[in-house]
Amino acid sequence: MQVLLEKHDQEFIRKKNRMLAFNSIQHHHPISRTDIAKLSGMSAATVGRVVADLIELGLVKETDQISGGVGRKATMLDLDLESIMTVGIEVDRNLTKAALVDLSGRIIAEKQQVVDQNGKQLDVLIDLIVHMVTEMAAEQGIPLSKFVGAGVGLPGIVDPDQGMVVFSAQLGWRNISFVKMLEAKLNMPVVLDNDLKVKALGESSFHSLDGIPAESITALVSIGSGLGTALIMDQKIYRGSRNIAGEIGHSIIDPNGKLCECGKRGCLQTYITDLALLQEANQIREVRSLQELFQYMEQGEPWARSIIDRACSYIAITINNVVCAYNPNHIILTGKFIEDHPEMFEAVKLKLQEFVGEHFSGSFEMFRSKLGERSVMIGAAKLVLQQQIDYGLVHK
Amino acid sequence: MQVLLEKHDQEFIRKKNRMLAFNSIQHHHPISRTDIAKLSGMSAATVGRVVADLIELGLVKETDQISGGVGRKATMLDLDLESIMTVGIEVDRNLTKAALVDLSGRIIAEKQQVVDQNGKQLDVLIDLIVHMVTEMAAEQGIPLSKFVGAGVGLPGIVDPDQGMVVFSAQLGWRNISFVKMLEAKLNMPVVLDNDLKVKALGESSFHSLDGIPAESITALVSIGSGLGTALIMDQKIYRGSRNIAGEIGHSIIDPNGKLCECGKRGCLQTYITDLALLQEANQIREVRSLQELFQYMEQGEPWARSIIDRACSYIAITINNVVCAYNPNHIILTGKFIEDHPEMFEAVKLKLQEFVGEHFSGSFEMFRSKLGERSVMIGAAKLVLQQQIDYGLVHK
Repeated sequence: MQVLLEKHDQEFIRKKNRMLAFNSIQHHHPISRTDIAKLSGMSAATVGRVVADLIELGLVKETDQISGGVGRKATMLDLDLESIMTVGIEVDRNLTKAALVDLSGRIIAEKQQVVDQNGKQLDVLIDLIVHMVTEMAAEQGIPLSKFVGAGVGLPGIVDPDQGMVVFSAQLGWRNISFVKMLEAKLNMPVVLDNDLKVKALGESSFHSLDGIPAESITALVSIGSGLGTALIMDQKIYRGSRNIAGEIGHSIIDPNGKLCECGKRGCLQTYITDLALLQEANQIREVRSLQELFQYMEQGEPWARSIIDRACSYIAITINNVVCAYNPNHIILTGKFIEDHPEMFEAVKLKLQEFVGEHFSGSFEMFRSKLGERSVMIGAAKLVLQQQIDYGLVHK
Repeated sequence: MQVLLEKHDQEFIRKKNRMLAFNSIQHHHPISRTDIAKLSGMSAATVGRVVADLIELGLVKETDQISGGVGRKATMLDLDLESIMTVGIEVDRNLTKAALVDLSGRIIAEKQQVVDQNGKQLDVLIDLIVHMVTEMAAEQGIPLSKFVGAGVGLPGIVDPDQGMVVFSAQLGWRNISFVKMLEAKLNMPVVLDNDLKVKALGESSFHSLDGIPAESITALVSIGSGLGTALIMDQKIYRGSRNIAGEIGHSIIDPNGKLCECGKRGCLQTYITDLALLQEANQIREVRSLQELFQYMEQGEPWARSIIDRACSYIAITINNVVCAYNPNHIILTGKFIEDHPEMFEAVKLKLQEFVGEHFSGSFEMFRSKLGERSVMIGAAKLVLQQQIDYGLVHK
């Protein structure tokens, strides 16, 4: 039976099918239309149509290559790496990073600069970002017209629809129209989101290269200066009603616990963040960095071992609580605590046996980050790409 | 630009549009096709098509009524209450309830029976359910052929695709093919799910009658013999990868806390469930029920007040943690603790000021249950209806 379609339904399906075809090409280029159809389950006619869309959007091109094998020869498709470029930007408390990212998610050039945001010189930061991007583009000989957009990930509560930073304790910002300010000087569309959300998007799309199916539910758990999670469902960021889903660092575990920066007591993050561990350590001895704390542990200091062991317990508890809430099938455990001390990943894994209940323990696999320190930039660039595929920010 | 559609895409859109039209009719019957188009934003042609689907599925009928007002007269549509009926069933530790529910979500007849599941006489339970349903149908003069299906909600981990109860501590069951067993004797399709999940579905569809938009994210929080949550997004149950999302009662808040029935220590539910409160009370005096505990509080006993006050604090903490994880815009607070002592709803609301952080406090509205003790039955019946609209369990 034929179905009559509304315009918004048509749009929905077009986006979905375009993304499906683009992912097939991104993961298997060069590839023929026939093989896209095989991989994605779409019919030849639909593949033809959405590939035409992707070519029009400047994302995909036909190559000179012809498919091998028996049967009819077919023109191969590839990412149109020369046609379109994206920018990924990470703004953190002390460091601002920017990268030029191509359609395959590969970083072409990157720069970083120490900037102390507590000075609150927003103009300086905007100018710096514009400078970094234009300089890199010039160095690479890429005209600015090739950029379909820049994605920015930063810590705090972000309203992506309004392009606003609602509140960021780390940056000391409140109600900042960041997108408007940056677009005025950067001359390309800018999309903005919370750093962990774009990080999760970046990581999950790269993990999916390795065979994690697209329908998976991936929860990213990050432990560093803060504690947070982000959820990716159907390859999209789960935002909740105000884009603040995943702020599990502020879930309360002890109403009589330590005061948190948010003003409440006993938030989960008061047990695990860098600052919390250092505060504890300094009750015993002057310790200025996590690195130093780990050194004391390696030297056999029982108090250092106890602090780190307890942190691992609370990370395992965090994972249990994430699993109870979201029931994901994949968890990516990341953040400075894990990245700088990879042996902690295994330590946490051991703790899971104690803290994750029977019916959840087999329900997920846990991975480390694949993108490391570049994950926010790559994820922010991926967000630009998603918007380009969904809405066509820029038509070539 | 025309879009070519895959079969699975067509199916998706059909389901979506059918549900949209059905909800318009359910909430505003009798209603004309023109008004459905206005309400839902669908075109006249699409409305015509999906209404035909709904009529074919036995859900909707044309009435003799003609729309009033000026302009062209139009035939009115109504729910085909005479054509189709559903059954909603709740199986709990001590009590089994069944109801005949019509398309509008109204209970036509209901029965309940005390059955102690710890006896594990599953055959007896199945026979009892079949007896209750057939007896009610006979009493109401409704032929069994009118029933498109029965929905069952019960506590525990349920695999709805396999129709299995994976594990239920409350019922003492493990790997029970409940759907197969019940279908063999009931002679209609059976759908099975976790009790809180169907409860959330029932409540959220009734709350939506009162103007909560369909796109809302609703989290149901239930406190009673256990503690759990369920999430409804886009009017569908959020299940996670194994239908165990929302088991927040087993999130750990104190690794040195009390032993939980799940074998871990310090699960959130060890602070709030009926049993936990009674255990505490019995350190002071023999208290056999929550009712008795509340009586002591009303008599001015400070220890009783302290126990109940602390429970309200932990319920507020639970709500904070739910909000941090899911960022819903609506919360339904329910369960025996609240239903039997409505003043506790206000007590918890007051506590939210202390335990919910600044950026979350204005992000949601909290409601009480509208369906009370019937919510699981009505929600289970709603699940049958969703399946009928999505897949056409039975074509008339």
